[in-house]
Amino acid sequence: MTIKNYKAESIELHQKHAGKLEINSKVDVNTQEDLSTVYTPGVSEVCNVIAEDEEKVNTLTSRGNMIGIVSDGTAVLGLGDIGPKAAIPVMEGKSILFKKFADLDAFPICLDTKDTEEIINIIKALQPNFAGINLEDIAAPRCFEIEKRLKEELDIPVFHDDQHGTAIVVLAALINALKVVEKEDYEVQIVINGAGSAGIAIAQLLLSAGYKDIVLLSIEGVVCQGETWMNDAQKDIAEVTNLTQKRGGLDDVIQKADVFIGVSAPNVLNESHVKAMSDQPIIFALANPIPEIFPEKAIAAGAAVVGTGRSDYPNQINNLLAFPGIFRGILNARKQNITTEMKVAAAQGIANVISESELSKDYVIPHALNSDVVATVANAVEKSALETVHK
Amino acid sequence: MTIKNYKAESIELHQKHAGKLEINSKVDVNTQEDLSTVYTPGVSEVCNVIAEDEEKVNTLTSRGNMIGIVSDGTAVLGLGDIGPKAAIPVMEGKSILFKKFADLDAFPICLDTKDTEEIINIIKALQPNFAGINLEDIAAPRCFEIEKRLKEELDIPVFHDDQHGTAIVVLAALINALKVVEKEDYEVQIVINGAGSAGIAIAQLLLSAGYKDIVLLSIEGVVCQGETWMNDAQKDIAEVTNLTQKRGGLDDVIQKADVFIGVSAPNVLNESHVKAMSDQPIIFALANPIPEIFPEKAIAAGAAVVGTGRSDYPNQINNLLAFPGIFRGILNARKQNITTEMKVAAAQGIANVISESELSKDYVIPHALNSDVVATVANAVEKSALETVHK
Repeated sequence: MTIKNYKAESIELHQKHAGKLEINSKVDVNTQEDLSTVYTPGVSEVCNVIAEDEEKVNTLTSRGNMIGIVSDGTAVLGLGDIGPKAAIPVMEGKSILFKKFADLDAFPICLDTKDTEEIINIIKALQPNFAGINLEDIAAPRCFEIEKRLKEELDIPVFHDDQHGTAIVVLAALINALKVVEKEDYEVQIVINGAGSAGIAIAQLLLSAGYKDIVLLSIEGVVCQGETWMNDAQKDIAEVTNLTQKRGGLDDVIQKADVFIGVSAPNVLNESHVKAMSDQPIIFALANPIPEIFPEKAIAAGAAVVGTGRSDYPNQINNLLAFPGIFRGILNARKQNITTEMKVAAAQGIANVISESELSKDYVIPHALNSDVVATVANAVEKSALETVHK
Repeated sequence: MTIKNYKAESIELHQKHAGKLEINSKVDVNTQEDLSTVYTPGVSEVCNVIAEDEEKVNTLTSRGNMIGIVSDGTAVLGLGDIGPKAAIPVMEGKSILFKKFADLDAFPICLDTKDTEEIINIIKALQPNFAGINLEDIAAPRCFEIEKRLKEELDIPVFHDDQHGTAIVVLAALINALKVVEKEDYEVQIVINGAGSAGIAIAQLLLSAGYKDIVLLSIEGVVCQGETWMNDAQKDIAEVTNLTQKRGGLDDVIQKADVFIGVSAPNVLNESHVKAMSDQPIIFALANPIPEIFPEKAIAAGAAVVGTGRSDYPNQINNLLAFPGIFRGILNARKQNITTEMKVAAAQGIANVISESELSKDYVIPHALNSDVVATVANAVEKSALETVHK
């Protein structure tokens, strides 16, 4: 089949506008009075007020609404380590989506270093300028250390979208898909193919949401305690998944599984795999643009619900459903940490945008451009944030 | 006298808009087609093109028009070391002036570190995102080392506005003031009161423009070879100024001087000083908001031309006349270094905006909001840049 890739259209659009972002003034500078008010001498009083009370930076400057989108350009889309300059078009895209959907200002920071400590130190030094940090397209396992340390060492929210954004939207889709197939049961058997940053984050969030039977696979095989090829993040997740210590490959663990979640590679799931699953299997094949299995093939083999990363099939699992509302909610709540509770609440919020009567095997997740989603997610996150305080 | 300080107006304006900047999209994101073109899957081709040819980042992303305004918040206006957060209102002001006057996008980066090496390394790591770096409000002597090293180690233009912006506008005003008093002579005797970053940069640029007789003073006394209190930058400038090795204080060196340039402190120049100067003295009293001498007092004592940093008196020496056109010109020329020749050309361009017939003792420098200035400066810089190549 032919996949429309929008390559020519995208080059033309980027060339025509010389990129996608511009930095504009929210105030007029037409007269000498304007100049004296927005700049010197008037601005010195604004500086003084912030110097006396640092919190005021969030109400007297654009900082309170400003997100830093930080990447080192090492894991960009499916393209891999293409470097910081080549990563900018993706970060600019993210920036305009933040603006469009959550009215947040977001600036791309693509760093010319791959050194974990240096990346951490730079982001710490940049902290005065941002109300939140969205980490993006940083290779595993470096991304885990960077996020962990920044959550400890910064006093603003930090969110690695490739991990948690994906996990939140998968959880939302799973909640609704299980309703469609009438298997609302935390005991369902879930296979996650791919044990990189996204796969591990999905496993963690599903566990937090209550699902108990999760098995991950990497390219080396089933993630299981005692395997010697595992990195630290895989060793950690092996402690809390695959509790019956299955070993082997996809052919083994797919047997009788209720749910397959692929964050791996094109065409790795075949009809026999689908047929070996439990009745009414749910398949989220998120490799993009070529999924682990194409929906028509999965359905022919008996799949009940199929989601992909693609916009030209039903049930697109798109991070855009999560990140704008997550940041809007945490900033509205004026909290520092995006907690697991907030992520689960966000997923439930996304799932609930679709009413019971609308829900179907072809509609388990709202459309990426559904304008109800951001407010729902933001409210869910804010509510969860405020409840956490009361605990 | 009462000076209108615009404090209340400025606080109100900053509060009302929550700062002055916003980051907007130049493209629409309304449909699924839009999303596929500005973001995935189409954007991956834009990434690929840049990965193959890094220069394309300047035409396919906003980077080619993007200036980083970098400060450590240690020498902000007359307020001193107020920290990176309190510096943001000034940098946002600068950003909107870049946009208004030169249609450049500029993002404030206020760094939470005062370490010279760390600042240099951070800016190097940020280089992928910017077509030029405007250093701002960084204390001397650290600012000299940072600018020097970045000019060597980056491949984009670097400009410390507090030094060179001020120097360019002072030179422009001096060229015209000397015409008004009919002393167009490179032998005029010039006293610069203040031997920090601005004073030293002014001395260097005036020397480059051809002026020969320049004496600087710091708070310690006259800058002169052999003085032990001088920092490295002062030692360097002592080699090429004060050639007759005058010593002492302002009372001594002001005798028979043709030009006084103050980048120092309020009220340090008195009537006796002005009376001790040569006939038709020129005084640029740039301490702000309280100048080294108020214009009415200087004129009463015999000054022929007086300029200040203030907008409520004639002849405002305002950096705004230089920095937008400087960056517009160097980016138009696609050159890396802002050279001394370009700075002199910029100053001559600013001076020439005022025709011979318009020129008067109250009008030696164009108004800060004069819309002819940017194009004139940009053209002068671009022409100088292209001439340099032909040499």
